[in-house]
Amino acid sequence: MNRLWIENGTFITMDDVKMVVQGHMVVENDRIVYLGEELPEQSLQQQAQRMSGSGLVFMPGLINTHGHAAMSLLRGYSDDEALQVWLEQYMWPMEGKYVDNDTRVGTSLAVIEMLKSGTTTFVDMYDRMDIVAEVVEQSGIRGWLTRGAIGLCSEEEQRQKLEEAINFAKNWNGKADGRIRTLMSPHAPYTCPPAFIEKFVQAAHDLDLPMHTHMSETAAEVEQNVRDYGCRPVEHLDKLGFFSRPSFVAHAVHLTDDEIALLQDRNVGVSHNPASNLKLASGVARVPQLLKAGVTVSLGTDSAASNNNLDLFDEIRLAALIHKGVSGDPTSIPALTALKMGTVYGARTLWQEDEIGTLKVGMKADFIALDVNQPHFFPQSDFISHLVYSGSGRDVRHVWINGRQVVEDGVCTLLDEERILREAQACFKALANG
Amino acid sequence: MNRLWIENGTFITMDDVKMVVQGHMVVENDRIVYLGEELPEQSLQQQAQRMSGSGLVFMPGLINTHGHAAMSLLRGYSDDEALQVWLEQYMWPMEGKYVDNDTRVGTSLAVIEMLKSGTTTFVDMYDRMDIVAEVVEQSGIRGWLTRGAIGLCSEEEQRQKLEEAINFAKNWNGKADGRIRTLMSPHAPYTCPPAFIEKFVQAAHDLDLPMHTHMSETAAEVEQNVRDYGCRPVEHLDKLGFFSRPSFVAHAVHLTDDEIALLQDRNVGVSHNPASNLKLASGVARVPQLLKAGVTVSLGTDSAASNNNLDLFDEIRLAALIHKGVSGDPTSIPALTALKMGTVYGARTLWQEDEIGTLKVGMKADFIALDVNQPHFFPQSDFISHLVYSGSGRDVRHVWINGRQVVEDGVCTLLDEERILREAQACFKALANG
Repeated sequence: MNRLWIENGTFITMDDVKMVVQGHMVVENDRIVYLGEELPEQSLQQQAQRMSGSGLVFMPGLINTHGHAAMSLLRGYSDDEALQVWLEQYMWPMEGKYVDNDTRVGTSLAVIEMLKSGTTTFVDMYDRMDIVAEVVEQSGIRGWLTRGAIGLCSEEEQRQKLEEAINFAKNWNGKADGRIRTLMSPHAPYTCPPAFIEKFVQAAHDLDLPMHTHMSETAAEVEQNVRDYGCRPVEHLDKLGFFSRPSFVAHAVHLTDDEIALLQDRNVGVSHNPASNLKLASGVARVPQLLKAGVTVSLGTDSAASNNNLDLFDEIRLAALIHKGVSGDPTSIPALTALKMGTVYGARTLWQEDEIGTLKVGMKADFIALDVNQPHFFPQSDFISHLVYSGSGRDVRHVWINGRQVVEDGVCTLLDEERILREAQACFKALANG
Repeated sequence: MNRLWIENGTFITMDDVKMVVQGHMVVENDRIVYLGEELPEQSLQQQAQRMSGSGLVFMPGLINTHGHAAMSLLRGYSDDEALQVWLEQYMWPMEGKYVDNDTRVGTSLAVIEMLKSGTTTFVDMYDRMDIVAEVVEQSGIRGWLTRGAIGLCSEEEQRQKLEEAINFAKNWNGKADGRIRTLMSPHAPYTCPPAFIEKFVQAAHDLDLPMHTHMSETAAEVEQNVRDYGCRPVEHLDKLGFFSRPSFVAHAVHLTDDEIALLQDRNVGVSHNPASNLKLASGVARVPQLLKAGVTVSLGTDSAASNNNLDLFDEIRLAALIHKGVSGDPTSIPALTALKMGTVYGARTLWQEDEIGTLKVGMKADFIALDVNQPHFFPQSDFISHLVYSGSGRDVRHVWINGRQVVEDGVCTLLDEERILREAQACFKALANG
């Protein structure tokens, strides 16, 4: 048995019952067994590795509910272009050249960046997912993985993609000590014919798996949906049975009040990706209205090609800032709400609220420690405000997932960072010159 | 004579003639004397302290054109409140309790944060400015300082404030090896009667000094201006002679096309403060239109009480992101433009474009070095994109101002950081309990 006793720390629990605890936490193997102001009882102190929490703030690991890790090789390859130019002239040709090693290295690069900046759980939708799963297994991170399938192809290719998605989902669900979970994901309503989406819904039913997709990212795709199918994307997906499965959608920028009500009624989560939505000029999602309606809203970075970083603290700050500025209401999305979107609401989106996203007894030991002896955290008055409006992934010093320390003093313990950075550079050069 | 030779670095010059140089830079005393791909000539190599530029990206120091440094003691003291509640119930009562030591410690805390995150020049508008100037003198930073005067008081108080502003501006202009420059600043059209503003304009004429003020931050103050004076703030200030002086204004969120044209005609700079404008729900300034009209737009953090950090990289990224999202045009404010707003356009705003804001021969040696051996800078393809969309003040490792190294390996060389953090905590406690 491994037992870790953190002494005299500040714990932001993200649990409304007691949001800030000045005191002690004990972790046994993969679970939190004590968190409180008093010393842990004698039996919990025994044989414990002791660690001083002084100068550190501890909080749940961040949960990134939408992304495409392997695309980190394309960070900064093309910016500030119209969406179709960016996709057709830059992204798709480069992605078309990807070989297995690009996926492995690109995913590893993304996982390093996420771990070091405090993300302990991420959602990944891409192809060659066996490789992604292997990186997740090795790195110690927690991943919800899914083969995202574009259906604009022949029936034979569609069949192959579906089979690949099913096999991946079957083979990897629950693997890596339960750190890997799988989903079924048609890419988006505008890239998948209705019958193709229905086949994914059927497979999700058969395998008893939840679903994830892109939805209503741009005004243009909503218009196209109305033109092609006579209704907006929420109603369209609902008719196809998508929301009969536990599910969450990425982006959801362009929604009517009726669509928000339907998402709430079907208990569909929304992954808000503010940086990507701003950078690609998709617009500003109606997050205050979604939250008010009772929809669970979490945060995603999207890929490093459209962000261009994977630091979820950036998304937390953007979520707290932009909705105030755009709505004209300074009380919109308070700091605590934004921090919940990056933690406990992420856990709720992934149906893991009883396991991750908060620090309390019985929860999985997924947590991070930030160095708060820095000027941007002074005066040390309100750490929730400071984390949201001044914090950054660079402030993260230690990271634990499932009770295992995966970042120590800012360095990944299970991955060879130097080698991965070197390989990422080589892969990019080969792709750019290939 | 001090000579520094930086070997084999990547230099983002911010000079359109040659934006990126892989090579060498030589600094003699306070000036850049060589920058190029070839080795410096023999005479410049002699007696030079040599430094490896490997793994570092060098760029001009950032220029923060609007703030109130001493307010950093109020970071996170009150967030997510309506502007009037925030000001009247939280900020003003706390500021009313300030004593000299609070100004000294609060300003020092802000200067530490700015230096460590790569800001080498800042504009500061506050009171007790002699203390602010002393901190600037000691810390090595470059500061444009001004006693911001609110005129909603008796004529006797108005007279005292004007006299204080004049004495400060006279005494400190050009001090600290020329690092300190002074301005004249009535606080804002809505807090200063027209006659009070005119007295500042007259003083600026007499002293041959430029001017700075807050303008059109909120829709409400613009409406009030129209109600009280029969015109909008740009025309109002123009009539009062404000723009007959070299000048720049902070915020300028709510502008008509005619106002933009008038600002351009009068050669008035605009300090864009995106985080503060979003957080206080003031709105989104029309920056693409201002730039298109030929107005010089730079960046400011505003105070840490309304931001809540002083990392100008955050403002650079916000400037590059929000105008795309709000306008629907992904080509709006490209990365390079945003980086210029934080550097060379800041220098132009302060009439120092021939001294700071770019790296080239003859310029003052105000520059920073960032550690780019980090995953969020890989692949190392386009550093301008990476600095804007992935960079952070935490990536800054070394800072030089006027040729003197003021941050070395992330630590301020001229200020006692630990003592200042400790004192900031003590000051805040006394203010909150006082």
